[in-house]
Amino acid sequence: MGDLRLDPMTARWVIISTEKDLGPDGYDIESPVIKGGTCPFCPENEKMTPPEIDADRPTKTAVDTPGWETRTVPNKYPALKNEPGPDRQGVGMFDMMNGIGEHEVIIEDIDHDKQLADLSVEQIEKVIRVYKRRSIELGKDERFKYVLIFKNYGLAAGASLEHSHTQLISLPIIPKRVMEELECAHRYFDYKERCVFCDIAKQEIEHCHREISENDDFVAFSPFASRSPFEMHIMPKVHNPYFTDISDSEIVNFAKILKDVLMRIKVALKDAPYNFIIHTTPLNGNHGIQEYYHWHVEVMPKLSKIAGFEWGTGFYINATSPETASKILREAKV
Amino acid sequence: MGDLRLDPMTARWVIISTEKDLGPDGYDIESPVIKGGTCPFCPENEKMTPPEIDADRPTKTAVDTPGWETRTVPNKYPALKNEPGPDRQGVGMFDMMNGIGEHEVIIEDIDHDKQLADLSVEQIEKVIRVYKRRSIELGKDERFKYVLIFKNYGLAAGASLEHSHTQLISLPIIPKRVMEELECAHRYFDYKERCVFCDIAKQEIEHCHREISENDDFVAFSPFASRSPFEMHIMPKVHNPYFTDISDSEIVNFAKILKDVLMRIKVALKDAPYNFIIHTTPLNGNHGIQEYYHWHVEVMPKLSKIAGFEWGTGFYINATSPETASKILREAKV
Repeated sequence: MGDLRLDPMTARWVIISTEKDLGPDGYDIESPVIKGGTCPFCPENEKMTPPEIDADRPTKTAVDTPGWETRTVPNKYPALKNEPGPDRQGVGMFDMMNGIGEHEVIIEDIDHDKQLADLSVEQIEKVIRVYKRRSIELGKDERFKYVLIFKNYGLAAGASLEHSHTQLISLPIIPKRVMEELECAHRYFDYKERCVFCDIAKQEIEHCHREISENDDFVAFSPFASRSPFEMHIMPKVHNPYFTDISDSEIVNFAKILKDVLMRIKVALKDAPYNFIIHTTPLNGNHGIQEYYHWHVEVMPKLSKIAGFEWGTGFYINATSPETASKILREAKV
Repeated sequence: MGDLRLDPMTARWVIISTEKDLGPDGYDIESPVIKGGTCPFCPENEKMTPPEIDADRPTKTAVDTPGWETRTVPNKYPALKNEPGPDRQGVGMFDMMNGIGEHEVIIEDIDHDKQLADLSVEQIEKVIRVYKRRSIELGKDERFKYVLIFKNYGLAAGASLEHSHTQLISLPIIPKRVMEELECAHRYFDYKERCVFCDIAKQEIEHCHREISENDDFVAFSPFASRSPFEMHIMPKVHNPYFTDISDSEIVNFAKILKDVLMRIKVALKDAPYNFIIHTTPLNGNHGIQEYYHWHVEVMPKLSKIAGFEWGTGFYINATSPETASKILREAKV
């Protein structure tokens, strides 16, 4: 009928409907296409964005002009702004602070018609080096506790522009979802004296029930307690708490596995909208945190809708088992 | 620019974008219409559903025939089934149990073209009495720890059938989202020796910043740290841990405020899709739980999409402040 499965990373129960066990045709997958006017992220339109913060300009062209290979700009409609603070205060019985933070957009390529999956491994490496460079830069402000890198692809996944881009946000608090992972990983480490993420990666590689692909440095798999159909995690094989400590050779393999995973969505899941998020250790974390937290990427194709049950309970009903999902994704011709 | 606000019920931070502060026209609201063939919930089609469990049949007509006013049937595609168990077991390093539970559908009225907001207060009272009756019945199985009542209205909110209905599910575990509320409420009670929900209701009524409507027994308001635009909570004014302890006179006022709130979505938010969930105290809870937990309803109009940021962080960016939302909802002509 169905399994109730416990996610060891968050202590969240997920209902896996092994009876339905839908393939991609079981979902009404929305087109990722976003219609719009003049693209502010295309070359020649640099004046349509706020002034650039970072760019790969191999021929040393002027800022905010064409000639770039990647380009990072402040989000024109930021969720948070870098202003004095945070001033934490009470409002009656409630608590608030002003919303300080940086919110940046990384334009991944000059070509409007190429999505991240379509770029060459070399171009994806450049994008990952921007992720690393901007994360290190934003992490220098000691008021921030977290730098989050995330991508929305397609309207249904929350994107509002088509030209391929990633967002980066720095936050004055540790997000709840990351706190949950930290607490779970801490409890696991207290008991086992091992990193839960290392153990998961090792088990998925050894048993191959849910593995999708791997290379020397990374493994991609469908998590045992996947929240949503065809969810994928990409995990470094060697323990590493900070994404920003990724080495040059690891960047090559991360680019390869990221392209591989995104191509599988394109081929096996009809180019479904998706989100991915890089989870990394908070900035200026407690002593010891480096032993039990392990950076990784969560990739969520957007095939189903979040409904009342999920909102009400904080857990998820997934109509595709991760065993079936990984088989379909593994066998996709990429 | 924006506030970071802490939800005292869950310790979740929410970004409220007070700069944008969008009204209903700022969102691309999807139509709630669901196209389909023959409706299995209409009178004369009773044989299309599994055999009925409960019905209001004032003229004592036969089961699974017309003549009903409300009708409850097992979900044809249940997330969980009532079978032996739960057998909790390890799978390598992972934990699982079989997915036991009941999953029922309450058909709220015979009229295919009326939604819950359109029904008379008397008919909504009948529906609420079914909620109560079925919750009590499902709660008798000691293997279950929670009975969740939730409604999905419109395709974008996860509904798959148009004929107005509510779902009810019993679970062998306490959902994570409810555990978070319990833990927060417990910490608050430990410190203040008061119920956090009572304090919230009192403050919202006194200060009127976010109140939408009220009657003798209930208040509806936009929560201080609303996760999504135009979120509403309905809270009993008098402390009551269990929804199932709702009295006959409270049922009348609950029907009135529920209709009022749903009509405001229809009028002010262009009949937006929505979810609502009844949060109540777990079954067979710990001693003392009755003092600090307080049943309530969370109503979430579905105006925006959940994107990578929300998935990655577990907190939410809301582009409409609850102060603006409550003003718009309060002033809607219902």
